[in-house]
Order: sequence, then structure tokens, then C-alpha cells
Amino acid sequence: MPTDFRQTLETFENPFPQRDYTIETICPEFTSVCPKTGQPDFGTLTITYIPDQKCFELKSLKLYLQQYRNHGAFYENVTNTILDDLVAVTEPRWMKLVGEFTPRGGIRTNVIVEYRRG
Amino acid sequence: MPTDFRQTLETFENPFPQRDYTIETICPEFTSVCPKTGQPDFGTLTITYIPDQKCFELKSLKLYLQQYRNHGAFYENVTNTILDDLVAVTEPRWMKLVGEFTPRGGIRTNVIVEYRRG
Amino acid sequence: MPTDFRQTLETFENPFPQRDYTIETICPEFTSVCPKTGQPDFGTLTITYIPDQKCFELKSLKLYLQQYRNHGAFYENVTNTILDDLVAVTEPRWMKLVGEFTPRGGIRTNVIVEYRRG
Amino acid sequence: MPTDFRQTLETFENPFPQRDYTIETICPEFTSVCPKTGQPDFGTLTITYIPDQKCFELKSLKLYLQQYRNHGAFYENVTNTILDDLVAVTEPRWMKLVGEFTPRGGIRTNVIVEYRRG
Amino acid sequence: MPTDFRQTLETFENPFPQRDYTIETICPEFTSVCPKTGQPDFGTLTITYIPDQKCFELKSLKLYLQQYRNHGAFYENVTNTILDDLVAVTEPRWMKLVGEFTPRGGIRTNVIVEYRRG
Amino acid sequence: MPTDFRQTLETFENPFPQRDYTIETICPEFTSVCPKTGQPDFGTLTITYIPDQKCFELKSLKLYLQQYRNHGAFYENVTNTILDDLVAVTEPRWMKLVGEFTPRGGIRTNVIVEYRRG
Amino acid sequence: MPTDFRQTLETFENPFPQRDYTIETICPEFTSVCPKTGQPDFGTLTITYIPDQKCFELKSLKLYLQQYRNHGAFYENVTNTILDDLVAVTEPRWMKLVGEFTPRGGIRTNVIVEYRRG
Amino acid sequence: MPTDFRQTLETFENPFPQRDYTIETICPEFTSVCPKTGQPDFGTLTITYIPDQKCFELKSLKLYLQQYRNHGAFYENVTNTILDDLVAVTEPRWMKLVGEFTPRGGIRTNVIVEYRRG
Amino acid sequence: MPTDFRQTLETFENPFPQRDYTIETICPEFTSVCPKTGQPDFGTLTITYIPDQKCFELKSLKLYLQQYRNHGAFYENVTNTILDDLVAVTEPRWMKLVGEFTPRGGIRTNVIVEYRRG
Amino acid sequence: MPTDFRQTLETFENPFPQRDYTIETICPEFTSVCPKTGQPDFGTLTITYIPDQKCFELKSLKLYLQQYRNHGAFYENVTNTILDDLVAVTEPRWMKLVGEFTPRGGIRTNVIVEYRRG
Repeated sequence: MPTDFRQTLETFENPFPQRDYTIETICPEFTSVCPKTGQPDFGTLTITYIPDQKCFELKSLKLYLQQYRNHGAFYENVTNTILDDLVAVTEPRWMKLVGEFTPRGGIRTNVIVEYRRG
Repeated sequence: MPTDFRQTLETFENPFPQRDYTIETICPEFTSVCPKTGQPDFGTLTITYIPDQKCFELKSLKLYLQQYRNHGAFYENVTNTILDDLVAVTEPRWMKLVGEFTPRGGIRTNVIVEYRRG
Repeated sequence: MPTDFRQTLETFENPFPQRDYTIETICPEFTSVCPKTGQPDFGTLTITYIPDQKCFELKSLKLYLQQYRNHGAFYENVTNTILDDLVAVTEPRWMKLVGEFTPRGGIRTNVIVEYRRG
Repeated sequence: MPTDFRQTLETFENPFPQRDYTIETICPEFTSVCPKTGQPDFGTLTITYIPDQKCFELKSLKLYLQQYRNHGAFYENVTNTILDDLVAVTEPRWMKLVGEFTPRGGIRTNVIVEYRRG
Repeated sequence: MPTDFRQTLETFENPFPQRDYTIETICPEFTSVCPKTGQPDFGTLTITYIPDQKCFELKSLKLYLQQYRNHGAFYENVTNTILDDLVAVTEPRWMKLVGEFTPRGGIRTNVIVEYRRG
Repeated sequence: MPTDFRQTLETFENPFPQRDYTIETICPEFTSVCPKTGQPDFGTLTITYIPDQKCFELKSLKLYLQQYRNHGAFYENVTNTILDDLVAVTEPRWMKLVGEFTPRGGIRTNVIVEYRRG
Repeated sequence: MPTDFRQTLETFENPFPQRDYTIETICPEFTSVCPKTGQPDFGTLTITYIPDQKCFELKSLKLYLQQYRNHGAFYENVTNTILDDLVAVTEPRWMKLVGEFTPRGGIRTNVIVEYRRG
Repeated sequence: MPTDFRQTLETFENPFPQRDYTIETICPEFTSVCPKTGQPDFGTLTITYIPDQKCFELKSLKLYLQQYRNHGAFYENVTNTILDDLVAVTEPRWMKLVGEFTPRGGIRTNVIVEYRRG
Repeated sequence: MPTDFRQTLETFENPFPQRDYTIETICPEFTSVCPKTGQPDFGTLTITYIPDQKCFELKSLKLYLQQYRNHGAFYENVTNTILDDLVAVTEPRWMKLVGEFTPRGGIRTNVIVEYRRG
Repeated sequence: MPTDFRQTLETFENPFPQRDYTIETICPEFTSVCPKTGQPDFGTLTITYIPDQKCFELKSLKLYLQQYRNHGAFYENVTNTILDDLVAVTEPRWMKLVGEFTPRGGIRTNVIVEYRRG
């Protein structure tokens, strides 16, 4: 997973950093490519976080996620890497990422990854 | 966000202040304007609170929220500011505000803000 | 809210007082009148309780609630008063009342009241 | 409630007694008779338990519940008695019974009963 | 339940073992045969786990589960045995298996089994 | 059914009488009283019509329907009478009224009445 | 199927015989007994009709249907016989009966019967 | 209703005019102002049409509909006028407009308007 | 598709042959094997028919369908063949078979076949 | 729209050409690129047809549709072109294509195209 994907992500200043509050962003149009079969995968990503000084900007998030469109990546890698990228760029107090992928071979898989500031 | 919006809010005396109880008010017809694009935004606001001496009056809440109709405001600002206004006017024991906004660019966002009396 | 409404409520002896268990009663046909506008209000009341020595009888509950049909009462008063009446008559170990009212002016309200034996 | 109803219940040996696990059985076709009005009542029973040495056999459970078909019993009695019978026969580590009954006079009732080994 | 079924299961290396995260896999096409009646049973298996060094590979999971297609097994045995096999092969930090089976005789049953590393 | 109820109904001039079009009005808060038992009935009325020169005004419709709140009337009478009143006052090209009433004794009833200009 | 069941059915005079209109009655609590296995069957009956001079009375319908509670009858017989009884007693312009029965052996069955005055 | 609203609407050439086919466009974020009360109204517009030589462009439709945001208009006027504007600009073979408006005073209204080329 | 599968099907005499009525049977637990990949397929079969002199017996239908459990068959073949078998055995006035199969490769397929007596 | 896309489509011989029957194929993972904005579009395609001598093969359909993944195409063009390709390759008796696309700018669009053999 190339770490330069995260350069697309832009942030804006959290307007209420004095308060712990939660932002939940749902992206039902995520798609990437299975590195084993070359077939496209589809899923919904739900990002929930408590911002510290920075919030991610929604349009830049959309462009960031579109980079995976023709990129090969397994479910476990995709969700962990996107969490790492979003954490690196926004430095939140807490963040959780849920990836829900469409069925393949009659089986469907969700991956749930969480970051808590140490 | 002009703080004089809150002057529209009216309250009535809590008829049962001796008891902690919860009032939940759901407003599915909230609309404001994106300050960046000038395009209208739409969402549902859910206000939940434990009143102390004052409850907000529903008709004044409706008029208060209508002031945002042609007002430019980002999601994070809107939800935090409305919480601040409602807290300032009703001085509740506890209050929570959830804003669920309709999709833009295939992505939708919720903001959850909470106040707990110190 | 006249306290003599509660005289309609009848109870029967809890057949299993040795055990803490929960009874949940859902009344989707509650209606009263708004004391300000004179317009009818509609809602669903959900009563949940752990009985001690007495359970309320369902038919008497129906007749008790029908007394509000042409009675003026605000949401907060209605739910708190009904809880007080049911607690006075059944003396439960614990009771909770949720009132969910239909939308007015595009806004809808729920009131949640709870009693816990001191 | 005749205690000889429980003689219909059969058990089989729990194949994994070394592990605490949960079995949930849902019976949407329960029916009995109201002892006051003689009218049939209908409901869904959900039995959840952690077995110890014995599990109840499903066909015998069906036959056990069919004994209530023409038997007069109030909701509170039915749910507490069925729990007692199932506990007596299977001696579980924990068991919970939820009875959800269909509406009568615009009101519907659920009864939730729980057993925890002393 | 033959223990050689588990030889079909393949694993791959957990790409993010430094983090506790959760993988949830839903298999709505599980079928086996009732050993008593010889009739087919149908159900949905949901496997949730926190991987340690190994994740199970989805295609091998599908083939593993297909081995039960013509195999006689009671619900309680099936869910406990599949959990044991998946634990033996992936050695997870935590795993939970929920089996939800379709109705028989108007009654339906779920079995919930959990493993937590000692 | 007193025919003077219809005097409450007000109309406004159809702004597009040159075109056949359809107006559908849904009233989920209808309530009347059963003349036999004295118990309140509840239902949803759906009025669909092609206006000619007149449309009914919504606030007057609300007040018209509220007259049935403490009025005794069987389902079949209520729906036929309301249709007759609405037809008499608005003289539509076509009108249909569907009344869907809440369950009583485990049975629920809908009544569908239609008017077509001769 | 004993034809004397129909003696329980009572009618009242159709208050609007000059107009063709439709009455739909939904009975989700129908139960009878399978004559082959002796096991109870459950289903929802939906009766739709255009009355002529007579409508069936709802309480008598409930009592009529309760006669099937301990009566052996196959689905096809039950639905055809109930239609015949209701037609004989109410002599409608048109009537349709839909019986939707709960699953047995993983299979569920609906029967649709219609009467049209010759 | 000012007819110059329609100047905002842009069209593009129908790429398949040789074939009758249907385009359905759903706009759940329509809002205007009630001319009587000054209060905002909300609704969903669904436009269905068979294009001839021209299709309306979606972004221009969005801007066209936004002109109603602070404009006073009754439901019947809004839906008929928007149909007229869309027909005037795209000259379709057939077009239908359904406006579904949110509840006011416990009553909600839909308006269905249709155009068929003479 | 071996034609001797149909020998499992049993019929009983239609109790009301003098009337055209409809029987609808829904089988959500159909499974067969893909002849190309050897992988199991799953689907729901809905059989609707107007019987003439014979109705198919439900238990024999279940056993008939279970013969496909380990049999290789494409969707189009399965649905057409089952219709042919059911028509041959019951000689109905009309019959329709809908097969709805679960997704494969992100695509799902339904096949609808109908027989009308010549 | 390059017409060589259709070369990916493969067919197999209709096993029951003597009978008019219907095949319905639902593809919820369709994605292409908006030629104006360069942004990805997402939608569900539903293809319904009565085959003549040929049926399209599902895996080749999947590969055919994947060619649109990075291809610029408006909704109206996409649906009409895919219909043309499928008609050219399978020469059906009748075919219908419904494209349902996800919302953009708060507006969503469906396109319905139909072919009937002349």
C-alpha cells in the first residue's frame, strides 16, 4: 500500500477543539481490486472519530479513496492502511474504521479497526 | 455564527424539576447553506436533554432553526453552535445533539456533540 | 392534571413476587389535547416495570388512558403524571415510561421518565 | 398451571458442557386461552439459555407448548411457569424467557423473566 | 464430527498483528443434514474474531463449510465444532461464532459460541 | 351521521382546472367512537381525487375530521359518509377514500369507497 | 367440514347498498389442526368483498374462525369452505379469500380463492 | 409563479431519439415556502419522462429547483408549474411529475401531474 | 436432467375442482450444484398454479426438490425442468415457477417460467 | 461508446427455446466514469429478457460490464448502449434494461430502456 496516497488528504482546523465530539463519515461507494483475482471489490467504509486540532476535508477524502479504484489490496490491508493514513494526517483523539464488503462466493466480510491515542 | 440567533429561543418552566427525565426532539427538516459552494445542505437534528429548571418551547425551536435556512455554515460549526445556543438558553443538566446530513459526492456525514454540566 | 384519574386503575396480585421480572406494555393509541391550541395530540406510550406485589390490569389501564382523550395536557406533564399515577397504584420496584408523540410543525418529541424505588 | 405439563419435556446430553455457550430458541406460534374471557391469546416465546449438562429437545418443546393451546393462563403466569418448567427439567446455568403477545384492545404486552443459578 | 475437516482450512499471515482489530465473516449458505431425520438443515454462520498471527482464507473457509453439506450434525455440535476447528487453525486472540438456523416445526434456533484465549 | 359536519369544509379554486391531475391526502390521525361499545377507534384515511373547479383546503379538512373524535360511527358508515361530504363540497371529477383501521380482537379492517362523476 | 359452522356468522344491513365499495378484513390469528399429523397450523386470512345487502359482523367472524381451532382441515379445504360459508351468509357481489400459512418443513403455502356473482 | 424560472433549465441532445425510453429523476431535497403562513415546506419530486430530442441537464435542474427555496407557492401550483416548465424546455413525448410533501398538522399530501403530447 | 426425479412427486385429489383457485408454494431452501464449477447454488422457488383434478402433496414436493441437492444443473435448466415435472404430474390449468438464485460474482439471477394449458 | 466492448460477451444455447420464459439478471456493482467531471458513477443494472436461441453467459457479462469501470459515459448513453450490445449478441425476443444510479447533488436518476423484436 503506497504511503503517498495520504498526500491527497487535506484537513481544516477543528472549529471546536475545546470539546470532545464525534464525526461519522459514511462512504458507500468504495471500490478496489482484489490482488489475487484482479476482480473489483466493493464496500462501504464508515469512519468515526473525535477530532483534536484537525478534521479531514470531505472532498479530499473522496479523492483519496478514489486512488484505490484500480489498486490491488486485500480487505484487511485496505482498512488498516486507510485508518493509518487518516490517523497520520488528522492526529485524532480517537478513530474507528468499519469496512463492509459485498458478498463473494456467498460469503461477506466486515473489518473493524480502531485507533486510540496512547 | 451570529450569537443573536439564540434570542429566538423561548423556554417554559420544567413542570417536574425534582426528577431527572429525558426529552428527545427530532427535527428532520433542517437546512442551511454550504459557505464554500453556496449550495443548500439538508439534515436531521436530534436533540436529547435532561432539563433542569427550563425546557425549550417547540415553536420557538422551529423558528430558531429556520434562521439557518439561508445562512452559510459547515456541519461541525452548525451542530456545535446549536448545542451551545440550546445550552445557554435552557441550562440543562445534560444535552446531546446529533446532526445527520444527506449525502454529498456519495459521502454522508453525521456530527455528534454532547454537553454535561461541569 | 387531576389526580382522581388514577382511581380508574385496577391491579391484581403479582403471581410471582419472589422473582424480579419485567412487564412491558405498549399503547400506540394514546391521544390527548394540546392545552395551548386545543388541537388533538397523538402518541405511543411504552410502560416497562418490575412489579412488586401488584400488577396493573390491562383493561383498567385502557380506560385510565382514555380519560386523557379530551383533556388538555403538555407532553412533559402527561408522561410525568402517568408515571406518578402508575407508581402510586402499583408500587413497583422499578418503572419507566416512554412517550413518543407524532410530528407537529415538522418536529417530533419523545419524553422518557423513570422511577426507581428509593 | 399444572406442573405435570413439564413431563412432556425431553432433554439430551449437552455435547460441550466444558464451555459456556448460548442457545436461543424462538417459538412464534404460541397460543393459549385467556382465563377471564375464554378468548385465545397468541404470542412469540424466545427462550435463551446457557446449558449445563442438559439441553431441551426441540420436538418435545413443541409438544410441551402445545399443551397450553386450550389451557387458560394469564401472560404473567404463562411466562413464569414455562421458565420454571424449563429450568426444572434442564437445570441450566442461566435462562431467560421473553413472551411477546399480540395486541388486545389496542394494547400489547411483553413479559421478560430470567433465571440465574444461585 | 471428523477432525480432518479442518485440514481444508488455509490461513494467511495477519498483515497488522501489532493491532487488535476485528474481522467479521457472514456465511448465509450453510447447510448440513439432521442426523435424526436425514433431512437437510439450513442456516447462517457469522464468525467474528481478533486475529493474532493468522487469518483464515475465505475460499478455503467456503470449501471447509461445504464439507458439512452431506454430513449429519446437530446444531449444537456443528457450531461448537466449527469454532474449535477455526480456533485450532488460526489461533486467534478472540473468536465468536453465531449459527442461525431456519425454522423447523414452527420453531427456530440460534447457537452462540465464544472462545477467549486463556 | 349529521350532514352539517360538512359545513366545516372549505375549498379553494383549482389553479389548473384545464388539466386532469391527482391530489392524494393521507390522514393517519383519524379517530372516532364505536357506537356499540363506546370505545375509541383509530385509523388512517387516504383521500385521492381529480379536482374539477375546487380543491378542499387542508386545515378545514383537519377540523372536519376532528368532529368525528367523540362521534359514534361504524367503519362502513364513516368512510361512505366522508366520501359523500367531500364529493358534495368539492364536486370532483373522481374521488376515492381508503380507511385503514387499527386491529380489534386480533382482526383489522379496511374500507375502500370510490366516486366517479356520472 | 361441517356446514353448521356458518351458523355462528351474523350480518348487519349494508348501510350504502346503492354503491359498489370494498371491505377488506385481515385475520392474522387463524389456527386449525392438520388432519394428517394432528399438529396445529397457523395462518393469516384476508377477506375482501363488495357487499350487496349484508355485511358480516366482525365479532361473529372472530367466533366463526375460532371454531377451526381444534378442527382438522387441509389448507385447500379450509380456504374454499370459509369462502363458501361467507358467500352463503352475506351473498356479496364479489368476494376473495387469501390464506397465507406459516412454513412447514421449510416450505410455505398460500391459497387464493375468489367468488364472483354469476 | 414567475415563468422566468425556467430560463435556468438547460438541455442536452437525446443520444437515442430513435427509441422510446424512460428517464426517472428523484429530487428528495425540494423546499419552498407556504404563501399563507410563510413557513417552509419540504418534499420529494419525482420526474419521469420519455424524451424526444432533448433531455434536461441534472445540474441545471438542481439550480432550477433551488429557485423555489424562498419562493411562496402552494403544492398544487408548484407541481403543475414545474411540469409546465419542464415540458416547455424539453418538449418530451410524455412526462409525469409526482410531488410528495412532508406532514403538516398530521396530514400529508401528494400531487400527481401528467403531460401527454397531444 | 433425469426425468425419473418426478416419480417422487405425489398428488392428492383437488377438493374443489369446480372452481378456479390458486395455490402458491414458496420453497426458500432449494439448493443444487453448478455443473461447471461444482460449487453449490442456492435459491428460492415459488410455484403458483390453478389445479385441475390434482394438487401436489407438500412432503413429496420437499423430497422431490431434495433430489437436486447433489445434482449438477444450470438455473435455466432447473426451473424449466421442475415446471415440466410439476405440470406432467399435476396436469394443472395454469402454472408458473419463479426461481430466485443467490448472488454469484456480484450478480444475481431470477428465472420465470410459465405453463398455460393449450 | 466503442462497439468492440460487446466482443467480450459470450452466449450459450437456450435449453428451452420452444417456450417463452424470462431471465432477470441484477448487477448491483456497475461503475463507470462521468465524462464531464471525471468522477466515478455507481449504479445497479437489471436486465430482463425472453431468450430466443441464445442466453448470455454470466461470467462474460461480468467481464463485459467491468470494461466500463474506467470508461467515460453518461447514464442515458450507458443504458442504451448496453441494451444494444446485449440485443446484438443474444438476439432475444424481448429485453429490458433498468439502470438505477446513486445520488449526485441530492438527485438520483434511473433510466429504463426496452427492446421488442420488430
